[in-house]
Amino acid sequence: MIRDLVIANRTCRRFYQDVTIERETLRELVDLARLSASGANRQPLKYIISCDPQKNALIFPCLGFAIYNGQRDPGPPEGERPSAYIIVLGDTEIAKSFGCDHGIAAQSIFLGAREKGLGGVIQGAVKRKELSEALRIPPRYQIIVVLSLGKPKEKMVLETLEPGGDFHYWRDSDVVHHVPKRPLDEIIIG
Amino acid sequence: MIRDLVIANRTCRRFYQDVTIERETLRELVDLARLSASGANRQPLKYIISCDPQKNALIFPCLGFAIYNGQRDPGPPEGERPSAYIIVLGDTEIAKSFGCDHGIAAQSIFLGAREKGLGGVIQGAVKRKELSEALRIPPRYQIIVVLSLGKPKEKMVLETLEPGGDFHYWRDSDVVHHVPKRPLDEIIIG
Repeated sequence: MIRDLVIANRTCRRFYQDVTIERETLRELVDLARLSASGANRQPLKYIISCDPQKNALIFPCLGFAIYNGQRDPGPPEGERPSAYIIVLGDTEIAKSFGCDHGIAAQSIFLGAREKGLGGVIQGAVKRKELSEALRIPPRYQIIVVLSLGKPKEKMVLETLEPGGDFHYWRDSDVVHHVPKRPLDEIIIG
Repeated sequence: MIRDLVIANRTCRRFYQDVTIERETLRELVDLARLSASGANRQPLKYIISCDPQKNALIFPCLGFAIYNGQRDPGPPEGERPSAYIIVLGDTEIAKSFGCDHGIAAQSIFLGAREKGLGGVIQGAVKRKELSEALRIPPRYQIIVVLSLGKPKEKMVLETLEPGGDFHYWRDSDVVHHVPKRPLDEIIIG
């Protein structure tokens, strides 16, 4: 059931970094994005994949991490960092805007990753100039988001947000990550 | 396997309009979006759902349809129109931009729809002013995309696009809808 997979597919930011991910696995995940819908079937998204420690080490410092309880998360320490990345690029020679293609692609990739026991996070907070330089990405490609992937080391719990409550996710003292979601009747307005 | 569902989940624009979709089914689909990732967990998306013929008749004229062989598709005739709609709104009192949330939501919804034997199309070409007026949508809600849903009456075939080939989908004389996708090695650039 897709519902079980959607529920299991929780954003994760701490990983067993020593569990490596094969390049072929990343290619299979990108293939799910390839086979998904694209606005007017234009398919302007391109991908850079990384699963080797040297390339990963170039990518990690370019990524912003989350904010918990008002404090910026410095990101996972060495040993708990992502084992792999999929950088989602927009090919500006194909399109100038990318609609919702990158969201569709990211969801297909993460549902596929979840099925393989992997998890991760979609990062929009990216130092784009630094990352472009580090990987020598040609200027025709716009960095849209970076998908960080690994074997999850966090426990995540879905909760229902009370009306007017605080939507921020938070970590408890057992390092369980709580994710409050607005109730269905609040988001269906007609 | 998520891959089978992703492959089966093809955009569709012709439906068995007399096959109705229950409001509860639409709520289940929106629930998949609700349980999916949202940037910073802000959850700014709201939804209007429609499955009754009167409300559907207000929505349909506000939607743009596809272009085939350079000719604008006038959209499906009466009898082959969507049985239901999910209008994806951005609540501007929660966020001013919506990142890739709507793409994630749309993919969760359509994968769930596919599992229920339904299909449809994400429409960004929407007469927003007309639709807002027709449904009296308060101005705080920005119409992002409309998801049209129904029981598919088209056959869709995935194909691999030759390098430099035409990415446009097209219909053959048997009303089979051909969807050429760029090959994996063209979209993974590093």
